Order: sequence, then structure tokens, then C-alpha cells
Amino acid sequence: MRARRGRFVLIGVDWGTTSLRAYLIGDDGWPVDRVEGRQGLLNVTDGDFEGVLQRAVSGWLADAPAGTPILLSGMVGSRQGWVEAPYVSVPATAAALAANCAEIATSSMGRVRIVPGVLLDDAASGRADVMRGEETEIMGALAALGLSDGTFVLPGTHSKWVTVSAGVITDFSTYMTGEIFAAMRDHTILSRMMKSEGDDAAAYADGVGTGLALSGPGELLSALFGVRVRGLLGRLSEASSASFLSGLLIGAEIASAAAGRAEVVIVAAPGLAERYRSALATAGIANRLAPPDTAAQGLARIAAQLP
Amino acid sequence: MRARRGRFVLIGVDWGTTSLRAYLIGDDGWPVDRVEGRQGLLNVTDGDFEGVLQRAVSGWLADAPAGTPILLSGMVGSRQGWVEAPYVSVPATAAALAANCAEIATSSMGRVRIVPGVLLDDAASGRADVMRGEETEIMGALAALGLSDGTFVLPGTHSKWVTVSAGVITDFSTYMTGEIFAAMRDHTILSRMMKSEGDDAAAYADGVGTGLALSGPGELLSALFGVRVRGLLGRLSEASSASFLSGLLIGAEIASAAAGRAEVVIVAAPGLAERYRSALATAGIANRLAPPDTAAQGLARIAAQLP
Repeated sequence: MRARRGRFVLIGVDWGTTSLRAYLIGDDGWPVDRVEGRQGLLNVTDGDFEGVLQRAVSGWLADAPAGTPILLSGMVGSRQGWVEAPYVSVPATAAALAANCAEIATSSMGRVRIVPGVLLDDAASGRADVMRGEETEIMGALAALGLSDGTFVLPGTHSKWVTVSAGVITDFSTYMTGEIFAAMRDHTILSRMMKSEGDDAAAYADGVGTGLALSGPGELLSALFGVRVRGLLGRLSEASSASFLSGLLIGAEIASAAAGRAEVVIVAAPGLAERYRSALATAGIANRLAPPDTAAQGLARIAAQLP
Repeated sequence: MRARRGRFVLIGVDWGTTSLRAYLIGDDGWPVDRVEGRQGLLNVTDGDFEGVLQRAVSGWLADAPAGTPILLSGMVGSRQGWVEAPYVSVPATAAALAANCAEIATSSMGRVRIVPGVLLDDAASGRADVMRGEETEIMGALAALGLSDGTFVLPGTHSKWVTVSAGVITDFSTYMTGEIFAAMRDHTILSRMMKSEGDDAAAYADGVGTGLALSGPGELLSALFGVRVRGLLGRLSEASSASFLSGLLIGAEIASAAAGRAEVVIVAAPGLAERYRSALATAGIANRLAPPDTAAQGLARIAAQLP
């Protein structure tokens, strides 16, 4: 899809732990070309971030106007990444993200900048949380959907729930749902049941209902053993047990994270988005999906305010 | 301690997944001799349960009166064990446990019996749970403490909370606390923080307080990521993080399992008992410790009612 029409205003890169997505972005914020690869942080073992980036975007450097900014977001700005970018505290605006980018002088691409992460550190409640990359996707989802307020979920290994008010990220919370799913499936007594990981919609829905119905703060510890009990009693098959477990954890997450929310915007790839859509529907919470490429939209929005 | 006084009424064996504890038990229910070994189910890879048991108790067979019963409890009665013993449903009495033992005819030791597990299967609430071995320890704790009512916790890989009324097990619930601790410590992003597993009482107490203060059913998913955040922000050291994580999970367990309980009896080895004692104290719940050898006491109590 190398359409190469219009004006290229930005080379944007969503660079995470396991993957790299580079976009050549036009003046409407949408990508006109893209490169996706597995060169996430974990795979840059020699520390040559500049070389990896250069190879990813070299095809664009000749075409794009001189001085087209290069802006990165995600875990590339963490301590384990290329250069540690600072955290911007909530309430976090796009302008504050733009003003606090980390800067790297490269020999091959000129100045490269990395979007800061966002920090929540509330002394009153004792709550603290961090994100890197999701703040950019949120800015993109706001742009793509024409929103300035809302509750957003970015599900995954570490699901982020983000509150936006008047275009500003005011609050967020991370749920370790995806990683706990994997640890339970692979490294506990439940793994005996989960030889195959079929996708069973009915078992998933049953799990969601069970998770939504939990009450006390530690009930999840008991419900997880309940997965084993269902297997012992012949009420959950090996083929369906991973779907049930996934539903249980997502149901518990939604019961806590979405309490009191009228609508939730889901920012996710289609398969995971559908899991959250159906669970939110079961919980009686309206929802809609953000379009793809929210990271590119967000990078464009932040780049527009770079000093 | 081969005192060999009084009358030997029973050879009792608490035989679990990872260990075997055999007792020569006198007529007061206390063991007069014992053998402890690592021949748990997982180590009996050739299926020769009879041989393992025979070697463990052979020294007693000559001394004990002919016909001294041999009674086993624990996971040896599971599908992965020697012979699958049935489940007795709640409300479960010592008499019902005695009446429903599985029986094995052996060539070397005559008849060996295995105490049933206990099943909770409440169609109205949808709650279901199982235990094997803990029912015997509960019967022993009742005998040793002279109790007929109470709430009991048997902490561990799968913590059991058991309600007893008029000497009968009426309700119980399993919390997967210990196994989730291990999976989080060893197989998630938290493992990066947990190179050493120091025992830090202050970090443990901080974790307990955090776990007790959780509210929604899925808040634990968020609090677990909070362990990582505390590390990132320099508020929790690598040496103390496992203690904090342990406290967090046990605090969450107690918040749910002990809600509304005036007193809890702890049935555990000293180190783990102390963790639960301090967490219950933080939660404002009275507690006391059962003495050691509750399994032997329970086996004696059940054996006294064997048909």
C-alpha cells in the first residue's frame, strides 16, 4: 500500500517489548505506509536500536521531506529500551507529552524523539501506576473517534483502563490479566487441564459470568481453584478450560475496572476486542471499538505539538 | 522417641503429593513413633504404593497387635494416587468418613483403608469444591483442641477454609494462594524483582495491609501489577518484594475468607502459621494455633469409628 500521496509529516514508531510497528504518516494522521516486525526490545540483544530503526525506516527517508520528525512511543523509552524517557504525571496532556520527549542524536537519521510514559502517583490514596505506549494510543483513539472524554480499555498482558476528561488523561489503572492467564495456564495445577487451548465461546461466557459475580477482594483466588474443581467434577472439558479461565479473569477485571462506567472504548486487535466486547455486554456496559492504527494517530497528534 | 508404651491402636499415614508421614498411634490419639519421607505421590513413579508403605511401616508391624488397622488420608486417595477413594458430601461427619473409606487388600499388610475426600456441591449457589486430607486434619484439630465448632484455615499451596458446626464439616472453600504466589514469583514480570527471597516482616505487613484493603473482585489483578510499580518507583527492594507479594495474596485471601468470622483456628507448620497469625491480627480477627500432628489425631478419631 505504498500510495505515497499527500504530504508525509511524520515517521512514527510504536516500539514495544516484542514488536516494532513503523508508520509513514500523512497530514491527516493516517499511515500511508507501514513496516511491522518482531524487533521488539527483547530481540535487540546487541543494543543497536539505531541500526534496527534505520533498517525499518530507510525506505522512507529518501522520499520524506528533509526534517520529517521521527517519533517513537512504547517500551523503547523504558530503562530496558534505547533511552529512558521521563514520565509525565497525570493529568497528562498531548502538549505535555510532546514537551517532555526524550531526544537522541543519531548519525544516520538526525534527531529521534521518544514519547514519555505517564505516571500516576496519588499520595492520598497510595495508588501508583505507570504506562508507556498506551498514552499514545489513547491520544490516537481520541483523534480517530472525535472524543474528548471517556473510559478506554487497552487489553493485553497488562490491561490498561484509562479515564480521559476534556482530552486529558486524568486517571488509569493496570490489570495484570493477560500475564496471570498465561502463568495460571502454563505453571499451576490448572495446566494439567489445558493441554489444548480451544476457543469455546460458551465456556468463555460462563467464565465471564463467574468472574463478574465474584464479591470479595480475594474471591478470585478461590475462583481460580474452582476451574480445577470443574474439571475434576467433569463440568469443564480440557478443550474448553482455557476459554473458561480467560473469561473468569476478564470478567473479574471488568467487574472492578468498569464499575460505574456507562460506556467503554476498546482499543485492541479484533480477536481480543471481541472478547472484551462480549464481556462488557454481559456486564451491561455499552462499548465501542477504536479503529486500527491508534498508535499512528496518537504519534501524529503528539508530533503536531512538538516544540 | 520409640517410647512404645501403652496400646497401639492404629498405623496412620498422611500421604500427600510430595510427602508421606506415617504414625504409630496410641490409644490417646497421639503418635508414639513416626516416619517422614519424600515419597509423595509424585515420587511413586512405578505405582508401587504398597511397597513404599510397607517399607515405611515395616518396623511397626511386628510390634503392633495383630489386626491393628492401617488408615491413610490425603491425595493417596485421588485419581492420581493408589486407589481413588470416594468423596463424602458436606455436611461431613467423622462417622461418614469412616464408613466410606476405600479398601485395598494387600499381600504384605492385610487390609489398608483410605479416608474419603469431601465434596461441596451446592446447586443453589453454583459453588463446588473438594478436599482430600484436610478433612482428617480438621477432625484432629477438633479432637486436640476439644472443639466442636469453628472456622479453620489450613494454609498452603491450596489454602482451605473450613467451617465446622457441632463436630460436622458444613462448608469449605479453597484459595489457590500458595500456588499463585509461586507462579507470580517465578513466571511473570514480577520474577525480575524476585531474585532473592528474603523474609522481610515489614514488607510482608505492608503487603497484608494492601491486600486487606482491596475492594472489587478484580482488584487483585491490579494490585499484583502494583508490586511491579513499587519496584519501578524504588519503593520496594528486590530483597523484600517476595515478602510483599506473599502478604498481598494472604491479605486478599483473609479479606474474603475470614469476613465475618470472630475467630480462626490455624492448622499449619510454625512458619506459615506465623504468617497467617500476624495477618489475621492485622485484620482484627482472633486466632489460635492447632498443635502439631493433627493428621494423626484425625486418623485416630476416624479409625475409632471404622465399621
